[in-house]
Amino acid sequence: MTPADCPFCRIIAGQLPAQVIDENDHVMVFLSLSNRPMVVPKRHIPDIHGLDQETGARIMAAAVRVAKAMKQGLECDGIFVSQANGTAAGQEVFHYHLHLDPRWHGGQRGHGPVSGEALAARIRAALVL
Amino acid sequence: MTPADCPFCRIIAGQLPAQVIDENDHVMVFLSLSNRPMVVPKRHIPDIHGLDQETGARIMAAAVRVAKAMKQGLECDGIFVSQANGTAAGQEVFHYHLHLDPRWHGGQRGHGPVSGEALAARIRAALVL
Repeated sequence: MTPADCPFCRIIAGQLPAQVIDENDHVMVFLSLSNRPMVVPKRHIPDIHGLDQETGARIMAAAVRVAKAMKQGLECDGIFVSQANGTAAGQEVFHYHLHLDPRWHGGQRGHGPVSGEALAARIRAALVL
Repeated sequence: MTPADCPFCRIIAGQLPAQVIDENDHVMVFLSLSNRPMVVPKRHIPDIHGLDQETGARIMAAAVRVAKAMKQGLECDGIFVSQANGTAAGQEVFHYHLHLDPRWHGGQRGHGPVSGEALAARIRAALVL
């Protein structure tokens, strides 16, 4: 898959819409089509095997930052972090992405479902500037 | 849970046995009781919310390094990375740990099951020094 064909590269380039939660020069955090927050490097890196140390560090820093905002903004009890490499592991888009999925004791407990727009807005509002 | 009661702190201190795959001053990679490779910070950090940037960077660097060795040493087709925060997300040991689970197309395809000892040895042998 070349970057021109990559849906995440197109989102990063502003050619496809997405609910963006956070962004810096190196990473973007936006919702997947199924409204799951994801940390994505702006450079087209297919999977974990292509991560350089600096990009890996920036992805982790963004994950910690957004996880904190999710806990506060969504009042979730837990967060499940996952990242698939290869179709054998369930990877569907071949641009590295780290999922951050909120979890509540006993299910959503009145917090959802909400629209992707509302979900992203709640997390954004809780980001520490 | 205080570090004295933490099974991962006890493994790191050499007080409990484990199949160790890789180690530096800041992180250790060893097999869980169910023989799943995990990257663990040596300092007792309960979950993602306690990660400082340097430790996060070191965890990711170790994950990239071990993922490469798993691909070569286990001849796996994919790797599923996961990390639970909070009981609501399935966390059972409250010392941060990032799982790296090998995946093969169509299941284990003749590669397993092997003992934890053999699994760790295969990965260790493929680490780039």
